Order: sequence, then structure tokens, then C-alpha cells
Amino acid sequence: MNALGHFTSLQKSKVEEELFSAVTALEAPESLKESMLYSLKAGGKRIRPLLLLAVMETFGNETEQGLKTAAALEMIHTYSLIHDDLPSMDDDDLRRGLPTNHKVYGEAVAILSGDALLTKSFELVADSPFDDRSKVKIISMLSKAAGAEGMVGGQVADIEGESMALSLEQLESVHKRKTGKLLEFAAVAGGVISGLDEHELNKLRLFAEHIGLAFQIRDDILDIEGDEAEIGKPVGSDEGRQKSTYPAILGMQSAKEKLDDHLYKARELLYELHNEPALLLELTDLIGSRKN
Amino acid sequence: MNALGHFTSLQKSKVEEELFSAVTALEAPESLKESMLYSLKAGGKRIRPLLLLAVMETFGNETEQGLKTAAALEMIHTYSLIHDDLPSMDDDDLRRGLPTNHKVYGEAVAILSGDALLTKSFELVADSPFDDRSKVKIISMLSKAAGAEGMVGGQVADIEGESMALSLEQLESVHKRKTGKLLEFAAVAGGVISGLDEHELNKLRLFAEHIGLAFQIRDDILDIEGDEAEIGKPVGSDEGRQKSTYPAILGMQSAKEKLDDHLYKARELLYELHNEPALLLELTDLIGSRKN
Repeated sequence: MNALGHFTSLQKSKVEEELFSAVTALEAPESLKESMLYSLKAGGKRIRPLLLLAVMETFGNETEQGLKTAAALEMIHTYSLIHDDLPSMDDDDLRRGLPTNHKVYGEAVAILSGDALLTKSFELVADSPFDDRSKVKIISMLSKAAGAEGMVGGQVADIEGESMALSLEQLESVHKRKTGKLLEFAAVAGGVISGLDEHELNKLRLFAEHIGLAFQIRDDILDIEGDEAEIGKPVGSDEGRQKSTYPAILGMQSAKEKLDDHLYKARELLYELHNEPALLLELTDLIGSRKN
Repeated sequence: MNALGHFTSLQKSKVEEELFSAVTALEAPESLKESMLYSLKAGGKRIRPLLLLAVMETFGNETEQGLKTAAALEMIHTYSLIHDDLPSMDDDDLRRGLPTNHKVYGEAVAILSGDALLTKSFELVADSPFDDRSKVKIISMLSKAAGAEGMVGGQVADIEGESMALSLEQLESVHKRKTGKLLEFAAVAGGVISGLDEHELNKLRLFAEHIGLAFQIRDDILDIEGDEAEIGKPVGSDEGRQKSTYPAILGMQSAKEKLDDHLYKARELLYELHNEPALLLELTDLIGSRKN
């Protein structure tokens, strides 16, 4: 097992423990808690929390300090999946091979459990063990990354761009908000908790922007070349919906080159940031070659 | 004009300016901003922000310091109305005499603009002009009040209790969460920004609990005895849905006595808190006698 493998298996279970115990402890209707836990437990790679914790580890910090913020990030990612899957949005019946939240708990509870996860995430940051100044900074960043200027705005732009032929620039703009901002938050929040300066935080932000775009290009490629059992949804679903994708705009060969280009730039930035970025390099490679 | 009238007209316009400018300044898709502003501009009494600011004013503090938190509170209230009105929840076409958000912008954008308002609210507190320690405390309180243990949990309990005959205790439990927790937050947050001690904050919390229940009983009474044009929705809609209400459980006369009892206890707590609570007394009376 490589360095990342050890780190991942340990930290993933810690983040999940934090996630599940935060919801289990809520004094709230059981149906709501069940619905929240159902989606939190549906698996997933936990890429965002792992990125945050890997930044902390790289800069020599106790990852324990970042666990609640890492869990907050995963809660926001999970809420966004629940809401995106709703009949009025992507209308998906399956997510990671399981029935989507609203298919199991009904639309009303699905919407409300998304709302509850989003709301709880800010409390987790506020209850973190680091200083108040960093908490306030991170809460402000998280709100920007997840809200109208970030993920939610990206989702609206994505809906509006559906069945339209987007230019490469428009497609990148959607992805930078819809998936990129939360990945940027993950990296930069890890840096803030680690006490990095603005110059270093900006490099982390750029690094995350590149792996965010790489992540999305890989997603588009997997939708065409992936294994249905591994990705947990039908192959070719983007094409069926006439969605604008990197392979559709650039052709498969150029899309793969663009993916490599982003990974190359991400690695370059890591070497500028730290002389032993092994963990983050492996995470970068994982994003570039992931199968699901 | 009484003291409250002067205070209300001035502070209401300041809160609304804060609300509208926060959304207008967002770098986000125009359709999303329009939808957010539509519901923020649909009027309403702004009871929650006014309560927060009235507590600050009573304890001799500059209300300017609390404006962003007051606006955050109204954003959360507004998002909850947008989501509650959705077809999968209360399925309402009208709100305050205007078409509901999803009727104008569609379900997807309505859900997302609710998400964006909720997300933005935490940024407004984080960007407030008071100290970081109070911000962190207020963000934690706001998350608890608005989330699974508060408003969202109350909405789930409300849905589950629909068309069931609730006991008085069950009905109170729903209301304490669904509308009470956010009113409690309003009063206590005003106290936190004003630097009150835990003993005083607890009295404020109890005061808000009583006016919260009074508010809800008044709501149920208005649904039967109110003027359709003033309340902006059809009279008798609770009865039509077989909703559990105070008049239905207690009879109209006892419901009115219970309302008076809560108002009396609220006033008592105010005199224990301050020797000149005129502004908060008037706000209490307003809640007890409101026409819409």
C-alpha cells in the first residue's frame, strides 16, 4: 500500500465517524435522521475531506483539528447530490448504484434532509477545535464556495446550459463553480487551519482549480469509456441527454490531453508549495486515473 | 406614531437595504438572483430581524452592529417559505397575495434559490462588525435553530403530523421547533451582540418562547377569524386540510385565553430583564393583536 492508501483508509473512517455521529446525536425526527444518514452512508470517495486533510498532513499539522471541517464539506457535497437528483432537477433514480434519497424517503423529506445537512455543516465548523478567527474565515469561504457564487450558481448555470451547445469557456465556467469551488475550499481551508500565508493559499487555490477541472474531464471520459458497474450509473447518459462535455467539444484525444495538462500544472504547483508533496501528488494521480 | 412605529419603519428599511444589496452584489446567474430577490421583496413583517434589533436597542447598543445578522435571519425565514410552498410540501400557489416562487421561476430554481439564501445567511454573520467569538457563537446558535433540531425538524414533524389529530403537547412541540426556534434565536442573538450574560440570555430565550407560541396561536385564530385580503391567503385553509390547530384542540375561547397567557408571561419576563422595556412590550402587543 502506498502513502496515500494508508492515509486514506485511516482518515476516511475518521471522517465517516464524525459524519455519522454528528447526525446520530441530533434531537430530531427519526425519519429525517434516517434520510440524512442514508445519503451520507451511500459511500463515495470522500475526495473533498481527504484533500483538506492531506493538505494539513503535508504541512505537518494534526489532522484531528480539521476533521469537523472535513465532515462539514462532505455534508455539503452530500446535500448537493440529494437536491441535484430531485425530479425537478436531474430526476435521477440511482446514485452510486442505490436508489436516490427521494426515491426512498419521498421528495419532501429529501429536500428537508438536504437543507438540514447544509445547515449542520456550518455548526461543525463553528464547533471545530481551532481559533475563532480561522473559523470565521473558513465559514465565510465555505458559504461563498457552496452558495450562489459557487456550487449553487454553477448548478443553475448547468440547468440553463442543458441541451444548449456550450463553448469550452462556458463549460469550464460551469464546472469551476459547480464542482471546482468546493474542491478549492477543501484545499484552501486545509491551508488556513495549517496557518499558511496568503501567497501559499493562492497557490493551493490554483492547484485545486487544476485538479477540479481534471476531475471533471475524467468524469466526462468515464461516462463514455467507464465500466457501468464501477461508476454506478449507465454509461453514455451524458450523450443521451445531449449534455455538453469535454469529449463532445474537444474530441476524446484532445480531452485526454487537456486532462494531462491540468494534472501537470497541478503537480508543478505542489512542488512550488512544498519539497515533499508525496501525499498530494498521489491524490492528484488518483483523480487523473480514477475508475469511478 | 408610537415608539415601535418609529423604530420599525427606520430599521425595516435598513434591514431590507442590507438584504437586497447582499443579493444584488452576488456574482451569480441573473435568474437565480431574480428568484432570490423576488421572495425577499415579497414583503412580510420582518418580525424576526426587528426582534433582534429591538433587543439591541433596549440594551443600549448600536443596531448597525446587528444589521447583517438580522438580514441573515430574514434570509433563512424566506428560504424556509420558498421550500415549504413547493409542490412536494404544502403545494401553495400564493404567498402574501403573490404567486409563490416556484410558480414564477419553476421548481428547480426555487429549490436552488432557497439553498442559496440559506448558504448566504452564514456569510452575513461571518462578515458582521462584532467580535469573532460572538460570531462563532451566533453561527452555532443559528445552525441549531434553523436545522434538524429546530426549524427543519419542526417542518418534518409538521408534515408527519398532518391529517393526524395531535395532542396539545405534540402541537406545541411542532411549533416550538418550526417557528419558535428562529424567534428564540432572534432574541438571544440580539442579547449576545449586546454582551448580556447567560442568565439574561436565558430570560430572553424564555420571553421569545412565549411570544413564539403567542404568534402561532394568533396565526391559527386569524385563519378562522381573519380578513382574507389582509392575511393574503384564503380563510379557513387549515380547517380544509384538517390541520391540528389551537382553536381546533382547545376551542376558540380557550385558545384566546392561552394566547393572553403567553403574552402576559412574555411581558413579565421583559420587566425582569429591563426597567424600561417599552419597545419590546409594544412588539409583544403587536404579535398578540396582529391582523396578518
